[in-house]
Amino acid sequence: MAKAVYPGSFDPPTHGHVDLIHRGSRLFDELVVAVATNSEKAPLFTVDERRGMLVELTRPIVNVRIDSFEGLVVDFVRRQKCSVILRGLRTVSDFEYEYQMALTNRSLAREVDTVFVMPNEKWSYVSSRLIKEAVALGGDVSAFVPPLVLKLLEDRLSPAKKRG
Amino acid sequence: MAKAVYPGSFDPPTHGHVDLIHRGSRLFDELVVAVATNSEKAPLFTVDERRGMLVELTRPIVNVRIDSFEGLVVDFVRRQKCSVILRGLRTVSDFEYEYQMALTNRSLAREVDTVFVMPNEKWSYVSSRLIKEAVALGGDVSAFVPPLVLKLLEDRLSPAKKRG
Amino acid sequence: MAKAVYPGSFDPPTHGHVDLIHRGSRLFDELVVAVATNSEKAPLFTVDERRGMLVELTRPIVNVRIDSFEGLVVDFVRRQKCSVILRGLRTVSDFEYEYQMALTNRSLAREVDTVFVMPNEKWSYVSSRLIKEAVALGGDVSAFVPPLVLKLLEDRLSPAKKRG
Amino acid sequence: MAKAVYPGSFDPPTHGHVDLIHRGSRLFDELVVAVATNSEKAPLFTVDERRGMLVELTRPIVNVRIDSFEGLVVDFVRRQKCSVILRGLRTVSDFEYEYQMALTNRSLAREVDTVFVMPNEKWSYVSSRLIKEAVALGGDVSAFVPPLVLKLLEDRLSPAKKRG
Amino acid sequence: MAKAVYPGSFDPPTHGHVDLIHRGSRLFDELVVAVATNSEKAPLFTVDERRGMLVELTRPIVNVRIDSFEGLVVDFVRRQKCSVILRGLRTVSDFEYEYQMALTNRSLAREVDTVFVMPNEKWSYVSSRLIKEAVALGGDVSAFVPPLVLKLLEDRLSPAKKRG
Amino acid sequence: MAKAVYPGSFDPPTHGHVDLIHRGSRLFDELVVAVATNSEKAPLFTVDERRGMLVELTRPIVNVRIDSFEGLVVDFVRRQKCSVILRGLRTVSDFEYEYQMALTNRSLAREVDTVFVMPNEKWSYVSSRLIKEAVALGGDVSAFVPPLVLKLLEDRLSPAKKRG
Repeated sequence: MAKAVYPGSFDPPTHGHVDLIHRGSRLFDELVVAVATNSEKAPLFTVDERRGMLVELTRPIVNVRIDSFEGLVVDFVRRQKCSVILRGLRTVSDFEYEYQMALTNRSLAREVDTVFVMPNEKWSYVSSRLIKEAVALGGDVSAFVPPLVLKLLEDRLSPAKKRG
Repeated sequence: MAKAVYPGSFDPPTHGHVDLIHRGSRLFDELVVAVATNSEKAPLFTVDERRGMLVELTRPIVNVRIDSFEGLVVDFVRRQKCSVILRGLRTVSDFEYEYQMALTNRSLAREVDTVFVMPNEKWSYVSSRLIKEAVALGGDVSAFVPPLVLKLLEDRLSPAKKRG
Repeated sequence: MAKAVYPGSFDPPTHGHVDLIHRGSRLFDELVVAVATNSEKAPLFTVDERRGMLVELTRPIVNVRIDSFEGLVVDFVRRQKCSVILRGLRTVSDFEYEYQMALTNRSLAREVDTVFVMPNEKWSYVSSRLIKEAVALGGDVSAFVPPLVLKLLEDRLSPAKKRG
Repeated sequence: MAKAVYPGSFDPPTHGHVDLIHRGSRLFDELVVAVATNSEKAPLFTVDERRGMLVELTRPIVNVRIDSFEGLVVDFVRRQKCSVILRGLRTVSDFEYEYQMALTNRSLAREVDTVFVMPNEKWSYVSSRLIKEAVALGGDVSAFVPPLVLKLLEDRLSPAKKRG
Repeated sequence: MAKAVYPGSFDPPTHGHVDLIHRGSRLFDELVVAVATNSEKAPLFTVDERRGMLVELTRPIVNVRIDSFEGLVVDFVRRQKCSVILRGLRTVSDFEYEYQMALTNRSLAREVDTVFVMPNEKWSYVSSRLIKEAVALGGDVSAFVPPLVLKLLEDRLSPAKKRG
Repeated sequence: MAKAVYPGSFDPPTHGHVDLIHRGSRLFDELVVAVATNSEKAPLFTVDERRGMLVELTRPIVNVRIDSFEGLVVDFVRRQKCSVILRGLRTVSDFEYEYQMALTNRSLAREVDTVFVMPNEKWSYVSSRLIKEAVALGGDVSAFVPPLVLKLLEDRLSPAKKRG
């Protein structure tokens, strides 16, 4: 019965995202992690790169599938024969934004419910945007992202690499 | 797999609570609505009265069961062979309080996740406390609670009834 | 056309309340400042004392009247042949509480609107509760309340006076 | 005495804006709805288009006038011989932003007060920005905007129309 | 030059409090941890018990002194020939309350500044109140408080001990 | 012992910034005000202009030094042989953003603590961004910035000057 879609930018995936995927895979029979192709103005990684990283990071979890979508998330959810959206909640700003999105999505598709779960509090302040900023300024973000993501991030953003 | 506990005071149950039970019953294979016996200092209704109202209000939903508990909610969840707590989220104050509770519960029982769902926005400002205050001051709260609850509330609190 | 009710505890009135009454008197043709008789569990001043202080403090403003009420504020507003409630907004916590009250009042009386105004930012952190606590601990609150209120407060709460 | 200016982008007007105009027209003798010409970086509709939509949507309300302004809103308010700004309040984020704007405007023009009213809770999560995003992704936003606005929105943004 | 007072209820001290004391002792030449004798209506531990626990917990830190006070915190700060109050900040609700207190204290004593530091994020959701509730319900709070505090808490609150 | 870095954009410095520098200079033995060279996408003033203004504005304070930095603030803090970052806190939005930054910086440099102080409440709603917007629209911002900054702002942004 319970199948859910976890949509996001994942540009790139962080420890927080992976933590949430683990929690979602325990809550639902099937979890579709869905890369939104139009959510970032100027993404650092292509949709294929982001899907590739997510495939690697979720390989041990049997009931997770990686996908991507264009257009409204509720249309994608319906095409998946599903009626649940999974999202993480960490801060009050998150909450206000997610609340507005959840109610808008409910208006667009009355049968779809958004379900919120809190990632491990260790990751409550980790965001893809801050991580990209830190790497670009030469910061060490190995505590926030899996090694596979760290390598790709540094290849693309690190000032040392760039100068090299 | 997916069984959840929806704990609360339900003193009394409102349209918002019933809305959330409907959503939870669609998300999970089984939903246990659990009246917390020690959450209110001076409850208006006894635990048995609250359980009775909930039984009536959820009669049409096959996968919902009404129960009550003493002590920590995570201990009750474990005794139910379950690892999911369901809670509603409406406002920023809700969020802050629920966030703290969810993280405390996670510390007490690492395998238990709290899952949040938003009730219909029509009920986003309805609280059992405000309803009781309004009835005690002679207000008409028929828009906020099911008829069965309204009758019991007015019997107990309405100033007209009291004077009568 | 525009008549408004400004309800509150006013236990006691502060510079913030008086500031808001001045603003309200400029916005509306008539402003009724209404002491809620049942809003405080254990008020420091009686309703008559609070009404007396407000009468003194608003003497120069011609279109302000002081009153008090029991029961629901929306019933009082209706009895005044009025459909506007005036309230002050200072902080996010204020906002959340006032939002819930305003929507509850709207449900109880569809034609009544709550209108919010911000007091002078000098008074944004002044509350009757903190003032009473400070006086009881020997603090000088002459910056927060009019002299007339200060005298009554110190007579009742000041530790020096008590010992004297 | 009571004349108010309701400034905004209205790009495009939503059910929430129209609801607020109705409330404002009952509170004040005259209400000037004022399209800010420089508030949006890249507006979807021209100022004339937005004024035209507002004129149509407010035709039944006798004491409402549609206008537009360049420059500071407080300068426009003064030129209208008026000292009240009307704004809607829905969420905590709204509140923080509006609070800062209201205090800044008060500093720029000490005699001008900002008055806040809450739209119908049905529209509490509707924003012009989210509506434009949804239409551009093929979503049905007929629940959020009047038919007249819907038609213009779809002409300009709908992917079906674009491809057609 | 830099001497600070860290006031609080400490009923009982938690890992979060101890974390903050460590941070404060690095920021200031001297740190006075001050138990407020009138901040809790019905404290679990006497002021002497709380002072005793704090003395034990801070024994390794040379520039920390434990004290207690009655009355206004700003009066105590002045008597200490000091002008800095140290407080922890964890959540938005914390922030709003602390902001109001800090501005009230500044009004009462213009030369006193409140300085905020964030405890380790591991303790961001730990509160003395929640800990007491959990112990009273039979919860294991060994993750939140030092062993010395745990023992005293369980002696006083644990249901098993009580029944025993 | 206590040396702190106060980083920011200061584009341009406001009364609020200067107020915070005064408070910081009383809290710490030395305060380094550090202009972040990459924090603004399209700054109005060059880093040298901002440093110049800050030098003038802080001339009377002996233990303040003006500097600028590229890259991560924690790297600059370490190069200064220092472990304290000073920041101002005014609103809930501030708090959420600053909280995330402080925890990210702590992850990047475990020994660095961020310390928050509240500016005079008179400046709690003043922001460099709003000031620039107001000047560009012809507003009088002399209440928000020192005369020296006002002159430079008007030279660059005022519509009257531009037309002249």
